[in-house]
Amino acid sequence: MDKNLAIGLFDSGIGGLSVLKQFLKFLPNERYVYLGDTARVPYGNKSEQTVIDYSKQCAEFLISKGVKLIVIACNTASAIALEAVRSITNVPVIGMIEPASKAAVINSQNGKIGVIGTRATISSNAYQNKINELAGNAKEFEIHSKACPLFVPLVEEGYANHEITKNVAREYLSGFSNNNVDTLVLGCTHYPLLKQTINEILPNTNLIDSGEHSAIKAIRVLANLGMLVDDSNYIEKTPKIDFYVTDIPATFYELTKVFLDFDVKEPKKIILD
Amino acid sequence: MDKNLAIGLFDSGIGGLSVLKQFLKFLPNERYVYLGDTARVPYGNKSEQTVIDYSKQCAEFLISKGVKLIVIACNTASAIALEAVRSITNVPVIGMIEPASKAAVINSQNGKIGVIGTRATISSNAYQNKINELAGNAKEFEIHSKACPLFVPLVEEGYANHEITKNVAREYLSGFSNNNVDTLVLGCTHYPLLKQTINEILPNTNLIDSGEHSAIKAIRVLANLGMLVDDSNYIEKTPKIDFYVTDIPATFYELTKVFLDFDVKEPKKIILD
Repeated sequence: MDKNLAIGLFDSGIGGLSVLKQFLKFLPNERYVYLGDTARVPYGNKSEQTVIDYSKQCAEFLISKGVKLIVIACNTASAIALEAVRSITNVPVIGMIEPASKAAVINSQNGKIGVIGTRATISSNAYQNKINELAGNAKEFEIHSKACPLFVPLVEEGYANHEITKNVAREYLSGFSNNNVDTLVLGCTHYPLLKQTINEILPNTNLIDSGEHSAIKAIRVLANLGMLVDDSNYIEKTPKIDFYVTDIPATFYELTKVFLDFDVKEPKKIILD
Repeated sequence: MDKNLAIGLFDSGIGGLSVLKQFLKFLPNERYVYLGDTARVPYGNKSEQTVIDYSKQCAEFLISKGVKLIVIACNTASAIALEAVRSITNVPVIGMIEPASKAAVINSQNGKIGVIGTRATISSNAYQNKINELAGNAKEFEIHSKACPLFVPLVEEGYANHEITKNVAREYLSGFSNNNVDTLVLGCTHYPLLKQTINEILPNTNLIDSGEHSAIKAIRVLANLGMLVDDSNYIEKTPKIDFYVTDIPATFYELTKVFLDFDVKEPKKIILD
């Protein structure tokens, strides 16, 4: 394989752009292909089989673009469809669950870890299982999970730091401080935009951004394969990204700018089936 | 080479433990050898030739322990002696300057970067040169440097969050806000302990921790060589570290705990010459 091939990321919509942002930070000299399945978003309230089918279609599209790595930049799809995606390709596949679980295990001092996500992610128990696997016999972990379905629509309404969102966050999160949780996994790609709000409610809790840790995992995976573009001589300042979506809703440009801090240029609309 | 060999870090003293802490976070399953040249600390006010001689001796000691990677966990030694250390060994050598410079270039939005460090680090212009090299033709960077010689003794006195240190920090750092610096490189391994104090004075400035970024660089370097210990199946909770020092002063145990959050067990005293 050629190390100049792109890294492919897919998400049910635009949330995965928070993951792309972390990749641009830690792997600035790579090329990227991003696919947002905006015509079928969200995945978090759909059945397992549907999430698996959609995820495989997204992965197949990225494979057709000749990527060297597939990043499932969506916690729901990672929780449910990681193995299904791996089964259809030889391209390495990274999900959100393992890197964030690893970071939680390393960061937690008291062994009390919280996980928030969509209903589908939380009821899959993917984080709980992975954290226990990584912890091995080393330590007993106590894991508290909570589905926070309102967070995605509130972020998409532009209410990330609004008083309404703070009240919702207080409802959702107060149990974590009662349980002395010292580390909280932001198990949905929209949640990094709520860091400030969550931090006000849980000021002494480490917040784990799954995008950040998946980018660091990608360094490991690509370097192990000799497929990492060098970044020791200069840094690309203009990101090289091809954007594909299955729909371009009215709020698309406004919202993507919130996630990325720059404008998405010329997203190409495609049909998945 | 055997991937189970240790990673070696050296510093003029104990400051490099803030670097070791970041390595334990990002590479928890590795073995470590740490050497603090506590009998000759600090390096920041010594001549270039002396820093080069001492650094080579430290590196030779680590090489004699059979390490797979040498980390110069000291900004002064990295600024002055990186090439000299590289010239005596085939073992890969990572310094602090390049990883932190890269992070600064990526993080800065307005191109105004501050660098603080010892007098030796600042007068070497190592950060300035590396930032300009990495930026290439992409963007004009404006770099403001400031030596902050009181910070190390204040941290070592246990005054990291003391009002006295805040006053000193105000003296040293106010120029950066006047210059609209949006990213500040903490170019000395003691300075991450001052993050909270610096953050109070420069609340809107990104602080770059050279230890964090050198650990991420180490992932790249080791994985490229196929020398990375796997951490996808379980996480070691008990760090595997051999500590060597050239002196054990009265405050050693107290101070090392501040840097690492755990006790240094059985440091072995050695003589370098």
